[in-house]
Amino acid sequence: MARPISNPDKKSSRELLLEAATKLIRSKGYTSTTVDDLCEAAGVSKGTFFHNFTSKEDLGVAAANRWAQVTSEFFRLAPYHLNKDPLDRILGYVRFRKEILNGELPEFTCLVGTMIQEVYQSHPEINKACFNSIFGHAEVLESDLSEAKKLYSPKASWTSSSLALHTQAVIQGSFILAKASGDIRTAAESIDHLENYLRLLFKS
Amino acid sequence: MARPISNPDKKSSRELLLEAATKLIRSKGYTSTTVDDLCEAAGVSKGTFFHNFTSKEDLGVAAANRWAQVTSEFFRLAPYHLNKDPLDRILGYVRFRKEILNGELPEFTCLVGTMIQEVYQSHPEINKACFNSIFGHAEVLESDLSEAKKLYSPKASWTSSSLALHTQAVIQGSFILAKASGDIRTAAESIDHLENYLRLLFKS
Repeated sequence: MARPISNPDKKSSRELLLEAATKLIRSKGYTSTTVDDLCEAAGVSKGTFFHNFTSKEDLGVAAANRWAQVTSEFFRLAPYHLNKDPLDRILGYVRFRKEILNGELPEFTCLVGTMIQEVYQSHPEINKACFNSIFGHAEVLESDLSEAKKLYSPKASWTSSSLALHTQAVIQGSFILAKASGDIRTAAESIDHLENYLRLLFKS
Repeated sequence: MARPISNPDKKSSRELLLEAATKLIRSKGYTSTTVDDLCEAAGVSKGTFFHNFTSKEDLGVAAANRWAQVTSEFFRLAPYHLNKDPLDRILGYVRFRKEILNGELPEFTCLVGTMIQEVYQSHPEINKACFNSIFGHAEVLESDLSEAKKLYSPKASWTSSSLALHTQAVIQGSFILAKASGDIRTAAESIDHLENYLRLLFKS
């Protein structure tokens, strides 16, 4: 008897809902995105939503965790890691952040940086997942910054940890300015200043 | 005949509603803040709300415009303007931004930077008022940065305008990190990096 053939490219309802959440929350925020919006965008029923998530908050946590995974993989595979010099890797990372400022604002801005503004007091579980995403990403940069500091700036008083977080502050803030102005260049110019700061710090 | 004596310290319903909006939106965002929440926090009736504002969006625009006015006045009166050297005024501004990181997160974070994340696509009028607040504030800094550039870095390739906006990107982003971590120091350390960058740029 023939068994039904499952299509390995077919996305699960859970994945469709998480993709819809990423798109909608980046466009209009967490609170504005309703369960109905999510079901419509994902093409699933409300029953399917609640089969996959206990609540919208549960989906918010899952969306932030998925964001952390997807972006980790995306940056892990980026070509700047091929540089042998840690400073070249750091500068390559910053230039890469500038290169990927492409398309519409909801396509390149940060899901978790957006959600934090709404949830940091009211939804601690979502906030924790957003924190893990941003601070986990900064930790990856920290190891290259530590290596670069040892080589080029061993006596500097700043810590690699604070500098890694500063790079994320600039990027998050540059998204806010780009959203306000509707102009990607505002974000790009701020990332240029970040690159300039790193060059001055390491005198490269 | 005695006339009723009006109390000059008594705030108008409009002002009470705008203060409530500033507090609530900084805590949980624009969409989560309902007209009922605003009326309760301001101690006014719904009728009074709609006597003062045609809609919640109308209040959002007014709250962003009031924010621009209040913060302009606050920074205009700050002591760093007394410095004769434009670079000292700039560095004084940045240190002042660090000094005022005090109290609870909703008390020192930015109303308009928070709102932008939710409204930039859905509420163009609020977004425009938020843009005017942030970019107007940056313009004030730009004149000191231009003067400092002429004195200390006349040949630099960056523009005073982009540097003024970069200071705002760092501050906005530092708020996101502080909200994520629940730790003001995350914001303070990013502002330290901003000060360090300015010192390196102007070699002070």
